[in-house]
Amino acid sequence: MADALVNALAEVCGASNVVTGEDARAYNHDFLNAFHGNARAVVMPANENEVSQSARLCYEARAPIVPHGGNTSYAGGATPDKSGGAIVMAMKRMRKVLEVDARNMTMSVEAGCVLEDARAAAAAKGLLFPLSLGAKGSCHIGGNLATNAGGLNVLRYGNARDLCLSLRAVLADGNIAGELKGLRKDNTGYDLKHLFIGSEGTLGIITAAVFKLFAPPAAFGCAFVEVESPSAAMDFLQHCREEAGGSLEAFELMPQILFELLAEHQPQARNPFGGRIPKYAVLFEFAARSVEEAEEKTANVLESALEKRLITDAVPAQNETMRAQFWHAREVTPEATKRAGQWIKMDVSLPLSRLAAFVGRMETALPNIGAGKYIVAFGHLGDGNLHLSAMPDDDSAAETIRGEVYETVREFGGSFSAEHGIGQSKPALLARYKDAGSVATMRAVKHALDARNIMNPGKVVLMESGGQ
Amino acid sequence: MADALVNALAEVCGASNVVTGEDARAYNHDFLNAFHGNARAVVMPANENEVSQSARLCYEARAPIVPHGGNTSYAGGATPDKSGGAIVMAMKRMRKVLEVDARNMTMSVEAGCVLEDARAAAAAKGLLFPLSLGAKGSCHIGGNLATNAGGLNVLRYGNARDLCLSLRAVLADGNIAGELKGLRKDNTGYDLKHLFIGSEGTLGIITAAVFKLFAPPAAFGCAFVEVESPSAAMDFLQHCREEAGGSLEAFELMPQILFELLAEHQPQARNPFGGRIPKYAVLFEFAARSVEEAEEKTANVLESALEKRLITDAVPAQNETMRAQFWHAREVTPEATKRAGQWIKMDVSLPLSRLAAFVGRMETALPNIGAGKYIVAFGHLGDGNLHLSAMPDDDSAAETIRGEVYETVREFGGSFSAEHGIGQSKPALLARYKDAGSVATMRAVKHALDARNIMNPGKVVLMESGGQ
Repeated sequence: MADALVNALAEVCGASNVVTGEDARAYNHDFLNAFHGNARAVVMPANENEVSQSARLCYEARAPIVPHGGNTSYAGGATPDKSGGAIVMAMKRMRKVLEVDARNMTMSVEAGCVLEDARAAAAAKGLLFPLSLGAKGSCHIGGNLATNAGGLNVLRYGNARDLCLSLRAVLADGNIAGELKGLRKDNTGYDLKHLFIGSEGTLGIITAAVFKLFAPPAAFGCAFVEVESPSAAMDFLQHCREEAGGSLEAFELMPQILFELLAEHQPQARNPFGGRIPKYAVLFEFAARSVEEAEEKTANVLESALEKRLITDAVPAQNETMRAQFWHAREVTPEATKRAGQWIKMDVSLPLSRLAAFVGRMETALPNIGAGKYIVAFGHLGDGNLHLSAMPDDDSAAETIRGEVYETVREFGGSFSAEHGIGQSKPALLARYKDAGSVATMRAVKHALDARNIMNPGKVVLMESGGQ
Repeated sequence: MADALVNALAEVCGASNVVTGEDARAYNHDFLNAFHGNARAVVMPANENEVSQSARLCYEARAPIVPHGGNTSYAGGATPDKSGGAIVMAMKRMRKVLEVDARNMTMSVEAGCVLEDARAAAAAKGLLFPLSLGAKGSCHIGGNLATNAGGLNVLRYGNARDLCLSLRAVLADGNIAGELKGLRKDNTGYDLKHLFIGSEGTLGIITAAVFKLFAPPAAFGCAFVEVESPSAAMDFLQHCREEAGGSLEAFELMPQILFELLAEHQPQARNPFGGRIPKYAVLFEFAARSVEEAEEKTANVLESALEKRLITDAVPAQNETMRAQFWHAREVTPEATKRAGQWIKMDVSLPLSRLAAFVGRMETALPNIGAGKYIVAFGHLGDGNLHLSAMPDDDSAAETIRGEVYETVREFGGSFSAEHGIGQSKPALLARYKDAGSVATMRAVKHALDARNIMNPGKVVLMESGGQ
């Protein structure tokens, strides 16, 4: 090879762990094939020392580095640009679970560990690592942290950020920051882990982290209910919180159109309401210490909610098979939606106190601005997170819809990116909707840690000088 | 006044809100009178705009700013240096609760709000703001965030950091970053709030924040138990977690010497063991949905623990009066300790899996290196946090003891500052015990946000160029 940097990387990581051309192709696009680029080479370090040495070589050569986990980003965060100048750093060889400390209820994991493997290692010691996403079979722990992944259990356990006790990261110049410590309290200066978490690889490469573990619940209470309106869903959420307290684990809202799409495109998914299409439905779940407690609490929650007319129908999961069917219906909705055609997809969050009003406003506005179909009242309602989609009549309608949604989100005090992050798809939204003081501070921090702008340039916050 | 900066500050905030000389004296030392300095002036802004304008004036004059909350720091974080050059910015006029959003279960509060007032505002809407410290009647929300305060409820609800959803801060140059948003999910770039939280005023001045609120528990199960050893206390902690799950709110360890000191110096505090001095005691508490549930669960936890011989004696709180007496005994221990003489006080944390071994090592080592009296097995055991104290035979013993404790903490993977922070008392420990990569990164961030080093200079991380 004539490329001196690539040759030097091969010396550090071994020739078979640095690939170019055809062998690098899989790293040039995301899993949905929505973002495309062109890597100069892909380097696959085996350990932190190789990450550090590789980063230093890139730093000296002023070559951009694109950290690459399981490649499941929705925002193109792990896809290089088209210049052909970037080194993709694939973390998949660093996949060890370093330690499960059952007594401390913590786990130390390398960044390239697949989420499902991390969950399995905790489960093998009788403990729960609660982070769970649709992509859990392929996404990496390092990517989960870099994007502050959310998923299905945020309501009870928080985002990836909330589960992380400490991490180590390799900086742009190859230096290493952080220690792997399993401490619940550590007030020793700036909490740098929180800077790397959610920075999408633009400040450094996370190499390993320590996470909290939990005692797994013994049983779950679970039910589908029908509600009249998003506002009624919010009242029912309040009711569940009062009844189930901190043990409420999931509270998912699904509107009528999703059940219609399921019936049409995923007919094998059982309709929990016996074939009837509900107006709005909620799937909720809470943890319990025994099957008996779960059954009793579910019955109580549903009876009292029916009495108070918070809900109009209730279908409790009477066993684990039914519970699995309920979750299956929820989990195949993205696939059913996809088969119905091309959608604009947005991922917003709102204060819970304004969420129902936001949904009402959107359901009124969207049909009038060229949305043939739309899905508003869908998402992790307990977290205030809506996965809003619309099928625009044409390209101009698409732009109008996006503008209307994001402006309304701003008006309601919400966020234009609840969990999917910024990547290369939303830096313009960030520049527009994030307050100017925060954007300027982000730039100052980015420049301080990566003056050459080689860490995943073009993602999250755009710097004035390019990455080469 | 001949001081142009002080005159300009008086124009911004009003002459009566800028004081010097004798009127500034109360700001020249901390509440324990352990740290002393000399302020050029104390400025008391009424709102964020005045904070911003005042900061800009200090920036232009290159005058250090010392943010000042309730002045309850144990680390001298809010005390100016002796140079007479620093402007103390006292936040006490910014004490409003801006909003309690009961439906969103959030609260927006100005930085100068006293913690107890914030708790009362939440309680008035039937909600719980769980942050609770001994100093709650005087400490400010801004200071709680700046130091990432811990306290008595961390086990269940986390530190101040974990309760904060968003904040606004005035930067060294007077610019403002952040928005007050009550969102559970917001992945829009670097999470800057976590940079300001725990930075002890060295990166900016927090002006307001949004916090999570919770449904208050209906009842509490509470008991004092005796255990044979710290190791048995850890086993009992595990047992309580299995039985009480996420509802365990407090788990405090107290050794024999504390009960002896209580008997001698706080005889009005009732000994929960009927006058008998236990070897090691644990005070634990969990939340329940009713008094009946609390009583039943307490009885179950204690009976099964006695059966398994995890504990040797158990005294459940049979009513609220008894519960208050138990907590009173815990809360007056610092005062009883203080009356016994001069102690070196340390605030360390350990992984739970190594905590008992650490206590064993210290209890063996301390008497051999000049500690006449010592308190090791004391603190928020559930968080791995020990408030370790020793009464040294002489000054040389004091140094030996500190060295031995901190070196052992490092060996056991712990932290030299669990909750009290760094302030002006521990920058040398930070330089010694924090990994070099993190210290360098902290300096880079500090320089990026405060190139003139005017934000609380001399605290947390020392910069090469001074604050002038």
